[in-house]
Amino acid sequence: MKVKHFLFGRPLSTEALQEEKMPKWMALPILSSDALSSVAYGTESILIALVAYGVAARWFSLPISFVIVVLLFTLIISYRQVINGYPKGGGAYAVAKDNYNPLMSLIACAALLVDYTLTVAVSATAGVAAITSAFPQLVPLIVELSVLGVLLVAFINLRGVREAGTVFAFPTYFFILNILALLIAGLYQIIVRGIPSASIPMPSHIPAGVTLYVLLRAFSSGCSALTGVEAISNATPAFRDPTVKNAKATLLYLGILLFVMFSGTSILANLYGIAPSPTGNPTVLSQIASHLFGNSWLYYSVQISTALVLLLATNTAFSGFPLLASIVAQDGYMPRQFSARGDRLALNFGIAVLSLMSILLIIAFNAKTDALVPLYAIGVFLSFTIAQTGMVKKWMQEKPAGWMSKVFINGLGAVMSFSVVIISLVEKFAAGAWTIAIIIPVLVWIMFKIKEHYLNVARQLKIDIGEEMNLKNTLVIVPVGGINRVVRNSLEYALESNPPEQILAFHVAITKDEEEKFRKKWEAWNTQIRLETFYSRFRSIKSPLLRFIDQIQRRVGDKYEITVVLPIFITKKRWQRILHNQTAYFIEHALLTRKDIILVKVPFHLES
Amino acid sequence: MKVKHFLFGRPLSTEALQEEKMPKWMALPILSSDALSSVAYGTESILIALVAYGVAARWFSLPISFVIVVLLFTLIISYRQVINGYPKGGGAYAVAKDNYNPLMSLIACAALLVDYTLTVAVSATAGVAAITSAFPQLVPLIVELSVLGVLLVAFINLRGVREAGTVFAFPTYFFILNILALLIAGLYQIIVRGIPSASIPMPSHIPAGVTLYVLLRAFSSGCSALTGVEAISNATPAFRDPTVKNAKATLLYLGILLFVMFSGTSILANLYGIAPSPTGNPTVLSQIASHLFGNSWLYYSVQISTALVLLLATNTAFSGFPLLASIVAQDGYMPRQFSARGDRLALNFGIAVLSLMSILLIIAFNAKTDALVPLYAIGVFLSFTIAQTGMVKKWMQEKPAGWMSKVFINGLGAVMSFSVVIISLVEKFAAGAWTIAIIIPVLVWIMFKIKEHYLNVARQLKIDIGEEMNLKNTLVIVPVGGINRVVRNSLEYALESNPPEQILAFHVAITKDEEEKFRKKWEAWNTQIRLETFYSRFRSIKSPLLRFIDQIQRRVGDKYEITVVLPIFITKKRWQRILHNQTAYFIEHALLTRKDIILVKVPFHLES
Repeated sequence: MKVKHFLFGRPLSTEALQEEKMPKWMALPILSSDALSSVAYGTESILIALVAYGVAARWFSLPISFVIVVLLFTLIISYRQVINGYPKGGGAYAVAKDNYNPLMSLIACAALLVDYTLTVAVSATAGVAAITSAFPQLVPLIVELSVLGVLLVAFINLRGVREAGTVFAFPTYFFILNILALLIAGLYQIIVRGIPSASIPMPSHIPAGVTLYVLLRAFSSGCSALTGVEAISNATPAFRDPTVKNAKATLLYLGILLFVMFSGTSILANLYGIAPSPTGNPTVLSQIASHLFGNSWLYYSVQISTALVLLLATNTAFSGFPLLASIVAQDGYMPRQFSARGDRLALNFGIAVLSLMSILLIIAFNAKTDALVPLYAIGVFLSFTIAQTGMVKKWMQEKPAGWMSKVFINGLGAVMSFSVVIISLVEKFAAGAWTIAIIIPVLVWIMFKIKEHYLNVARQLKIDIGEEMNLKNTLVIVPVGGINRVVRNSLEYALESNPPEQILAFHVAITKDEEEKFRKKWEAWNTQIRLETFYSRFRSIKSPLLRFIDQIQRRVGDKYEITVVLPIFITKKRWQRILHNQTAYFIEHALLTRKDIILVKVPFHLES
Repeated sequence: MKVKHFLFGRPLSTEALQEEKMPKWMALPILSSDALSSVAYGTESILIALVAYGVAARWFSLPISFVIVVLLFTLIISYRQVINGYPKGGGAYAVAKDNYNPLMSLIACAALLVDYTLTVAVSATAGVAAITSAFPQLVPLIVELSVLGVLLVAFINLRGVREAGTVFAFPTYFFILNILALLIAGLYQIIVRGIPSASIPMPSHIPAGVTLYVLLRAFSSGCSALTGVEAISNATPAFRDPTVKNAKATLLYLGILLFVMFSGTSILANLYGIAPSPTGNPTVLSQIASHLFGNSWLYYSVQISTALVLLLATNTAFSGFPLLASIVAQDGYMPRQFSARGDRLALNFGIAVLSLMSILLIIAFNAKTDALVPLYAIGVFLSFTIAQTGMVKKWMQEKPAGWMSKVFINGLGAVMSFSVVIISLVEKFAAGAWTIAIIIPVLVWIMFKIKEHYLNVARQLKIDIGEEMNLKNTLVIVPVGGINRVVRNSLEYALESNPPEQILAFHVAITKDEEEKFRKKWEAWNTQIRLETFYSRFRSIKSPLLRFIDQIQRRVGDKYEITVVLPIFITKKRWQRILHNQTAYFIEHALLTRKDIILVKVPFHLES
């Protein structure tokens, strides 16, 4: 208990669960670490899809980045409208729940849960890649380091992150500063020395093999750079007044920052003719940084800030997943444990499930970011699509002033997001997207089954408080293994609330001889309780007891409530437990699975 | 259940547990497979200890084998006297229990348990080595094959081996025939072609490095060939009348067979100048066989018979370990589960423990026989020593006719066995014998602790049947989470045996508001049962309940028996269990560890 308090802190009372209101300068870094950190792997994902088709093919990363930036601003404008429409936040699930049948909102929920899990896995492995780019001797440990990163963030979240506050703003600003420094250094070099000779010019003709298929695949990989842009709209209520205005402004800043940082790295990668390493080490961002900063402290600063912001992005998923799971659990579509808050008010169950799933992913994919990226984006853009179409429905229903342009904007967002879903599914199907195409429907089906179960339970539990209580007579069965203090305790308990004629002692003998002997001893004891003995050829107590109960139930019908009193040994020390037969445990299990039997456990505490 | 019956057979009734009486020709192979199968690795163990000191050093395997044969006959004669003295069998533990304080018999017991475990591991790996010598492509699978062998024998034993009968005699005779064929073929070749040129002659001077230390180490390794010679004396009652005479004769036959087979292989190994392979593959026996039989079917016959007899030796340990553990458990020095017979009358717990331990050993030692051998022998010869000194004590106390010569024979056996223990301990200490030197005392200490616990329990359980029953009033606490059918069931149960004023409903509210609401609903229900509400700032039900019970116990003292009624959800399908909070389970655990609280579980069976 003391260890627990030391590690996780003292319990918090429920009142402590108050949303803290954030100013913009603090909300921006905390809510956009996921989106901004994508800069660490966005450009690289595009290049990986092109690298097989020669140097000239890599030039196409520029137009592809441009399309992604267009998509980015469409999404930013669309999500500014989501903030308007849903000032209470809640994200895709809330929008879908409000505007659709449960099916659509559960699809959004499943997509988001999968997406959060992938965010953890992708960010942790990309963060480790930033470290190993600077320290290649750590490459053999990438799986261990990624898992360690996840566990660290999980641990912080189990403690409850509330206290961290401003500390969490630091890594994002640090990362922004570093990337901006990189861009300025690049710009300066061009001004001083002109375009580097390594830069890849626009090819005069399309290189062999670079089909539309290849370009679309590179585009869908690059869309991973846009994951996380929805975070601000989800958390609108966390902003200080005027909430909506502040959230919208912050979202715009995010858009501009992401645009500058992402397109800047894409341009720099092109200027230095950088090819992604087949092992993923060093990363493209690390190659750019070492081109510009050599081996100076500035290089290490870029790498460390990248790792930190990615760790913080992991943290975003660790607050998003449990919160969503808790809301959906309250709606009855997920196990209730997801909505129970622990001592520290953290949603422990969700944190544990998220850690476990993402660690399994990291291990299964050997901590390779580029192997995980194909699975990414689909879930994100599926939830974007559902949120945006939900908004379209909302505007068309409510018809506020200027609803036509609102419908157009969200409609455009929806069409573009849906295109990304389709392109990603088709292009990445064989590379792993098929798993997402299976997992999301399966999750939705499971959630419906869970809801069905909870509804069934509620129906079965409902009572009419006007109805009379239905009291039966009780018949108490006390299995007796011998004549000793434990058995006497059980008999005393039975006699305290019941007349002796409603109590039956039950003994199982292994041999006829033993049966006879026990009967004599019992009579000598003179308890006035009737003894029933059974002879068990197969040395089992459980089955004769069940047979005996069967006989009695057949005889007395359901006029009597049957109670079985089981003595339980409680040993003083834990290890002593293995010295006692676990018969009582097996009998308990068998009795509880039968109908209409009440079980009484009379503990006997051994003193040594 | 059907699967269980198919795999393990139908349950057997207790009467089926009758010792089968065996004629000599059947007892010999069944009881001596352990001893005879040592021929498969005995000579090899000696050679491994010498191989580092050049070809000439290997000649010393001959005089070492001779000393081991002398030791063999001393043991045979000594154990023939054990048969005389203990016609009821029982082995070292029985002899020690009869002649010593418990300490000595527990040391014998621990030594034997360790020895049985090693027998399984050594025999299984040596059996697999016989197979892989013939089929080297299986070498990468040695661990898997050894584990499979152990699991196979464990499975047969869980079914109960009784049915096997004569089938088990076959592998030993088959092995004896094969080894004799090998010896005859070797003799024939010498007669026809003379001494082979590869044979190692007696060196004119002791080779460099061959110290007494080296020779003693080779000797102690070779003593592994003598493990299992005690098996016949342990099982004397299994012989047909005249029991003692038959057992003694069979033991003599075993001695002669082992002498011929062991010294024969040692001589053949010397004649063909065979060096043990550093990987243990092919085995020395396989090398001899391929020298004499080439690649003919006779070679494969030797290898397969070796593997079979070693599997049977494993089986010997699988009957010895559980039986010994069961006897010691009945004496109270081991957990009682060891003496419980399963449906098929097999000692399942002992079989399971033995399988687990030996599989762990096989995995830890990578299925290398020569790595396991240093641990062997010590346990065996320690138990030999205790048995023989026990016999000496017995003869000196009883002083039967000719007791002086009896004392001399058993005394000689004891001295020689003890010498082997000391030599093995010293020579093999660093190679692993230190683990045995730790494990045996630890096991003995644990056994004493167990006995102490059982004695304490017995003392605490004892009652005087003349004493009056001590009946208290009961106070029933029913935790109520809401107003529903589950709660009504629990209240009905409470009301059936108790007046309403002895019942307290207990509710935990998370907010003050909820507390008020619930109180109103309760009053509307009008159950005549008093409601106590608690407000929990930390969202826990367990701790307020425990505090409440504390308060009550302080108020009423021990005049009242406190009963807590817990409703238990029994879901229709297993997977549904995770959809319900496990609160009841945690509450149950907390209540059972407190004194003087009786727990009533009222199951509520969900219909869907």
